[in-house]
Amino acid sequence: MSPVSPTLELACDLISRPSVTPLDEGCQPLMMKRLAACGFQTEPLPIEGVENFWAIRGTTGPVLCFAGHTDVVPSGPQDAWTQPPFAPIIDAQGMLLGRGAADMKGSLAAMVVAVERFVSDHPDHRGRIAFLITSDEEGPAVHGTRAVVERLRERNQQLDWCIVGEPSSTDLLGDMVKNGRRGSLGGTLTIRGKQGHVAYPHLARNPIHLAAPALAELAAEHWDDGNAFFPPTSFQISNLNAGTGATNVIPGTLVALFNFRFSTESTVERLQQRTQMILDKHKLDWHIDWSLSGLPFLTEPGDLLDAIAASIHEVTGRETTPSTSGGTSDGRFIATLGTQVVELGPVNATIHQVNEKVLASDLDLLTDIYYRTLVRLLT
Amino acid sequence: MSPVSPTLELACDLISRPSVTPLDEGCQPLMMKRLAACGFQTEPLPIEGVENFWAIRGTTGPVLCFAGHTDVVPSGPQDAWTQPPFAPIIDAQGMLLGRGAADMKGSLAAMVVAVERFVSDHPDHRGRIAFLITSDEEGPAVHGTRAVVERLRERNQQLDWCIVGEPSSTDLLGDMVKNGRRGSLGGTLTIRGKQGHVAYPHLARNPIHLAAPALAELAAEHWDDGNAFFPPTSFQISNLNAGTGATNVIPGTLVALFNFRFSTESTVERLQQRTQMILDKHKLDWHIDWSLSGLPFLTEPGDLLDAIAASIHEVTGRETTPSTSGGTSDGRFIATLGTQVVELGPVNATIHQVNEKVLASDLDLLTDIYYRTLVRLLT
Repeated sequence: MSPVSPTLELACDLISRPSVTPLDEGCQPLMMKRLAACGFQTEPLPIEGVENFWAIRGTTGPVLCFAGHTDVVPSGPQDAWTQPPFAPIIDAQGMLLGRGAADMKGSLAAMVVAVERFVSDHPDHRGRIAFLITSDEEGPAVHGTRAVVERLRERNQQLDWCIVGEPSSTDLLGDMVKNGRRGSLGGTLTIRGKQGHVAYPHLARNPIHLAAPALAELAAEHWDDGNAFFPPTSFQISNLNAGTGATNVIPGTLVALFNFRFSTESTVERLQQRTQMILDKHKLDWHIDWSLSGLPFLTEPGDLLDAIAASIHEVTGRETTPSTSGGTSDGRFIATLGTQVVELGPVNATIHQVNEKVLASDLDLLTDIYYRTLVRLLT
Repeated sequence: MSPVSPTLELACDLISRPSVTPLDEGCQPLMMKRLAACGFQTEPLPIEGVENFWAIRGTTGPVLCFAGHTDVVPSGPQDAWTQPPFAPIIDAQGMLLGRGAADMKGSLAAMVVAVERFVSDHPDHRGRIAFLITSDEEGPAVHGTRAVVERLRERNQQLDWCIVGEPSSTDLLGDMVKNGRRGSLGGTLTIRGKQGHVAYPHLARNPIHLAAPALAELAAEHWDDGNAFFPPTSFQISNLNAGTGATNVIPGTLVALFNFRFSTESTVERLQQRTQMILDKHKLDWHIDWSLSGLPFLTEPGDLLDAIAASIHEVTGRETTPSTSGGTSDGRFIATLGTQVVELGPVNATIHQVNEKVLASDLDLLTDIYYRTLVRLLT
């Protein structure tokens, strides 16, 4: 292994620490030491056993915050890897291999090195630079970014712009950034009937028969039109189960698991109300356990998105595509502070897989993109 | 134990033979020996390992056939019984206890004793008396009565009237007879969609969503009005399953098990056609494995039902109620010969349970009812 740049050297150092959620394994102290060395005030914020830190440089003006996580998902069976997942190497194809190479220790290294270079080149930059780093993004995500954001809210800490290092690129570095995410609202619906014998249906109430028209109506419902940045809200039943296994028994209950992926045109309360109205209209004996996984957020074109798109074009020659597709990320918590949030990181093709890897040279290009974004926004 | 009548003595002899399906354990040879002794031609008809026999007395005129089975369901845990299930006793309350007491060795004993007495009293009776007995009614019921009926059909054996000894009474002996049964038609419906991720519904086709309107229509469908003897045909979905267990995966298929209990106003073909039309109307990619458990049959008021009702009234003072309710029985096979079929037997409250029992004196009354029915039809 021969690291050829400060970014790759730091990335390898981070990857070699097996910081499987919620462990940090010294990643955050290492980052804080580097940031403190270039003028940041660093503040560990451990919460309920989860390691987090906050760091800021500068005292006034707009804040550009880098956000991310030091934890990684488990490696899976180590012998399925071509080499140990926590012993990073750059292979003959120029790929950096290791758990976290793409998600997201490569991005963390690029952020730190870009900031070091920017502070060195522009020691008197305008505004402020900040870092919000957690070790619980891949896990419950309760005592990580979400909790730190609440501390910042209590302090009235301003956060104008935030770049989250999630691997947003699909085929080539920078081809896509995420400027929002749909919300995710789940539910476990139980419809109660009355069990009985198939030969005596008048003595039973079949919850399958009772539920079918309501499920049909829920599936056909048009929840909203979406908007320029979001597709229309979608409703999907993922699991449906009723029955005892016996063919001559009418079951007593039906259980359906469903999920809304919703745009900024709908609210949790309105989706819940409309679901419940449809169930009531069909006079069902129902119960729903709701589970909100994340609110939707959107960063419309503006300072941050423009600066990032221009920097990507400058470094790679590519026009980036802003997208709100895909699953949830910690960006949803930060956006609640009124912050413009954009996710920008390397290609995500191998994340959460064995042999996670990223083109090593992409991490140097990513460092350049972060650097030029700093220049655009803070000089 | 002190058997107080020929019927109870024979019933105890039969019950003491542990003839769990498909075993006969000598019950049929015992019955054939008794029948041969009073002028029957007896014919063992073993088919594929199942013991059956046919016996007939007389050469011309209408045939009154007694039908039943010597096999019994398993005893269940023997220590849950107040005494061994195959060691019959009459308890202090006058109940005959033992596996098969009600279903249907008590009826078999009553048939044999009634016929013996009738032949003794009326050696030159008109018409013919027959027995059709199997040891596979509680099991697959493929090589039992169904197969014997096919033999009889091949021989052009006439069968005018048939009394099946199934325990038809609900509270008191003779309060109900079964003059028909609904048909039973089952199906396993598979609806195919396309699996995918809940976050990308446009790339998938959710079989739950596709199926719901069709299932609602099937559940709401009015299949027929029934008639004076049958309730309307009913359709019930007993089991419905779709989903991988994961909440973020749209499943690829949905499977529903359903069952028709159908009256003589509907046919198998018409029910299948109408089901398929509804599925096609909803443009579903579907497949059904059909399973016909039994065709419906009906014995309208006439010679047999009238003779049985009058005999019940004469012996017990009760007005019997003809009914087509409940599950299937071997009567459905015999009815295909154009035979009037009525099921008449003791109270069914404890059948298939531990401590199966029947009022001992009811078996003597049942013997009288069978005897008087023989007198009414064959003298």
